[in-house]
Amino acid sequence: MPASSTRPAATGAGRRIYDLLRSQMDDGTLAPGSRVLSTRALATELSVSRTTVTAVYEQLAAEGFLATAPGRAARVTGTLAAPLPVRPAASRQPAAALSWSAFGRRVADMKMPALLRDEPARYDFLYGALASRDFPTLAWRRAYQAALLCQQQCLSYIPSEGDPSLRRALQGYLRRARGIACDAEQILVVHGSQQAIDLCARLLLDTGDAFAFENPGYLMARLCFEATGARLLPVPVDPHGIDTDRLPDDEQVRLAYVTPSHQFPLAGVLPIGRRLELLRWAQHRRAWIIEDDYDGEFRYGQRPIDALQSIDTQGRVIYIGTFSKALSPQLRLGYLVLPHALVPVFRQAKRLADRHAPALEQQALATLIGDGAYERHVRRMRRENERRRAALLEAVDRYLPADARVHGTAAGLHVVLWLPFLDTRDEAALAAAARGKGVGIYPVAPLFAQPALHGAPRPAGFILGYASLTVAQIQEGVQLLAQAIAK
Amino acid sequence: MPASSTRPAATGAGRRIYDLLRSQMDDGTLAPGSRVLSTRALATELSVSRTTVTAVYEQLAAEGFLATAPGRAARVTGTLAAPLPVRPAASRQPAAALSWSAFGRRVADMKMPALLRDEPARYDFLYGALASRDFPTLAWRRAYQAALLCQQQCLSYIPSEGDPSLRRALQGYLRRARGIACDAEQILVVHGSQQAIDLCARLLLDTGDAFAFENPGYLMARLCFEATGARLLPVPVDPHGIDTDRLPDDEQVRLAYVTPSHQFPLAGVLPIGRRLELLRWAQHRRAWIIEDDYDGEFRYGQRPIDALQSIDTQGRVIYIGTFSKALSPQLRLGYLVLPHALVPVFRQAKRLADRHAPALEQQALATLIGDGAYERHVRRMRRENERRRAALLEAVDRYLPADARVHGTAAGLHVVLWLPFLDTRDEAALAAAARGKGVGIYPVAPLFAQPALHGAPRPAGFILGYASLTVAQIQEGVQLLAQAIAK
Repeated sequence: MPASSTRPAATGAGRRIYDLLRSQMDDGTLAPGSRVLSTRALATELSVSRTTVTAVYEQLAAEGFLATAPGRAARVTGTLAAPLPVRPAASRQPAAALSWSAFGRRVADMKMPALLRDEPARYDFLYGALASRDFPTLAWRRAYQAALLCQQQCLSYIPSEGDPSLRRALQGYLRRARGIACDAEQILVVHGSQQAIDLCARLLLDTGDAFAFENPGYLMARLCFEATGARLLPVPVDPHGIDTDRLPDDEQVRLAYVTPSHQFPLAGVLPIGRRLELLRWAQHRRAWIIEDDYDGEFRYGQRPIDALQSIDTQGRVIYIGTFSKALSPQLRLGYLVLPHALVPVFRQAKRLADRHAPALEQQALATLIGDGAYERHVRRMRRENERRRAALLEAVDRYLPADARVHGTAAGLHVVLWLPFLDTRDEAALAAAARGKGVGIYPVAPLFAQPALHGAPRPAGFILGYASLTVAQIQEGVQLLAQAIAK
Repeated sequence: MPASSTRPAATGAGRRIYDLLRSQMDDGTLAPGSRVLSTRALATELSVSRTTVTAVYEQLAAEGFLATAPGRAARVTGTLAAPLPVRPAASRQPAAALSWSAFGRRVADMKMPALLRDEPARYDFLYGALASRDFPTLAWRRAYQAALLCQQQCLSYIPSEGDPSLRRALQGYLRRARGIACDAEQILVVHGSQQAIDLCARLLLDTGDAFAFENPGYLMARLCFEATGARLLPVPVDPHGIDTDRLPDDEQVRLAYVTPSHQFPLAGVLPIGRRLELLRWAQHRRAWIIEDDYDGEFRYGQRPIDALQSIDTQGRVIYIGTFSKALSPQLRLGYLVLPHALVPVFRQAKRLADRHAPALEQQALATLIGDGAYERHVRRMRRENERRRAALLEAVDRYLPADARVHGTAAGLHVVLWLPFLDTRDEAALAAAARGKGVGIYPVAPLFAQPALHGAPRPAGFILGYASLTVAQIQEGVQLLAQAIAK
């Protein structure tokens, strides 16, 4: 009990006396209303100092077990009715039987993908994972230390929109890297893009509303929107991204969630015509467009395409950025660029949700962006991932059957592998077989909201992320995958 | 443009050609459907390399501005209808006119206290602020660095309930320091107690439900519960904490939010009789008790009183702990100890809300708790704050009028100063006068939900937090406050 030195009643003898008296109260030896021995008498009886006993009595009085008054004997309080009966089963009752909110019931019914396996695959093409050797450890350590040593004299809550220096640094970065012209006021720093999506869902959707969503699309975003009780309106995706001819003409639609820079998972880059179509639809329907630019920095061969937000003249686009792909998904740092009209309410909602993002990591990030280290790192990562991508394409070409097709190679940190010779229903079986060989690949099926609506039958498909693997691992992994397919 | 080196079309000449063509498309010089010069012709005309022009065309094609086909001249795409008219007013429309969710409308209507002032008071008795010199900078730096250098090979999302080593460390700490017996499975690491409260509100309350809440009580928690649309049932507070005789007998009540270790703001410690009463009420009403143990570590003279959770045999208490009072409010780290039945759904909700708390800071904290440094730090802080508290009491005694009374001195990092000679309606005026002298004090009025329900008239009262000030600042601050009162 390391904390005992400052607790008079918790020192060895004191604690034992305290426990003794408490147990006598519990078992009725000391009944409510009964007098306890004077401190002097008890000290004599137990051969301890009177100070020790006094401290115990004061503790018990402060906790309400004893009633004391100057010059009168202490008594056990009368309010100590029989303790509550223990019902161990109560704490194990099924979650469904509890009084959840409507949101809680929807979350309880939600089937989320398993996150971790007991034994990670040796060659894990897990999308979203990064190699820790890619993390700019030294630069981050330096920047974090500087933030730590420069802490303001008084540590209190910072503004919910985030550290001012980070928002200023982001403003410049977004201008340079993503063509976004915004002022720092529009930026809200959040705990990764997941929180950005959750805030949008909470603030913009109700049961009875509807939302347009790419099909297939990013599962954790879809679940977030569905958790509000709003109705899903899946919009088909083709190799160019969301099919804007099929945007819903629905009175209840409040927003569309899109990934125009690099559709997740099918990897199309949305052409300018569709971008304008999307903006017109939003204007006509008075709907919001949520642009999730989750890996817009990673585009190979050509310069990254400017964000959809950069051509929005109506203030209808909510832009979401993240540091999960260029730095680490474990940092939990991302941001929103909001139309001016939305700023005050999003700030209040962020404050209610968790006050603000951690200050030190925000300051470290501001330093990294401000001194150019972040952009140098992104360029290095782009080259690194270009090498991984090349190795993956080459290995697929060399080891997999000739009709295996790879899509989405122009951008991002994953590709889609289509295997036309495999039945869609066998996706899970092949993933399991591959795992048996130490290779993690991820079926696309769960990313489809309603397979029936997708129209034409599709071949079996898998997501292969490559950002956490070495070139050698990629080659060996694909080779092993070929063996799994051959069976 | 530091990012230009990997963007063929973004180098000096390339960028200028790109911009030229884009502007010609925008102003109609290059109409939809029209052919553009061949790469060779344009390169000759502009005296640049053909490679540069080809890169620009590829970029424009990838973005959908040009349609290219092998062996044919590139054309401006036909989908480029007139750009959307700019309506600058649209982005500045009042928030109320926008299509918020019901939650969004409630947040929009919510009046939150201003967070920061342009000029902080010199002697700021701001509750919740800590002195940065109290932060264990060296130990934290060492622990954070160790976490950084030990990052797993593959950086991917960690479990939403938090880092396993932190949850194990917390389990031991809670047992030693707060009398809580739980297993690590029940612990959910969150972004400070605010997120803990928000998760409870979202998962347990709906419009039409009701919640019991201490009056006066912690404003940011009340707002969180009110944001769900549930009905507030204020329960009066006396010097012993929440008055359990007046707990609501309401069919719709789903939970009670309480601060039994140290009522915020009136600072009472809830006696055992009332604790049992509260548990019985929860059992009878099938309601949850949310125990916010925001500063349970800080109790002077006696050992900290065990948490209410420790005597809950029914699995009805949701315990909330935080590191905002012992380390820093800017870290945003806290946790829930949940009844077993609630664990799976809270984990899913946390994952939807923001995946998980930042990994590195969780690991650093696990190290600090695991090696005893955290508890040593808490003891040091207890002594430090005991000194501050003594200085405050002495200064009040010496400088303020004789009938000024100070409550809540047994625990925590703030006291309540009652000034019976001052009218309740003059609280704001005195706070302003004090600020004029460089002293920040905070009226209790905003912490009352419904002043009319509080019963007996109360004297003017102020919250004085002292954890961010030196003994000298406390003395000078109270002296200046006395001058403000004298006027």
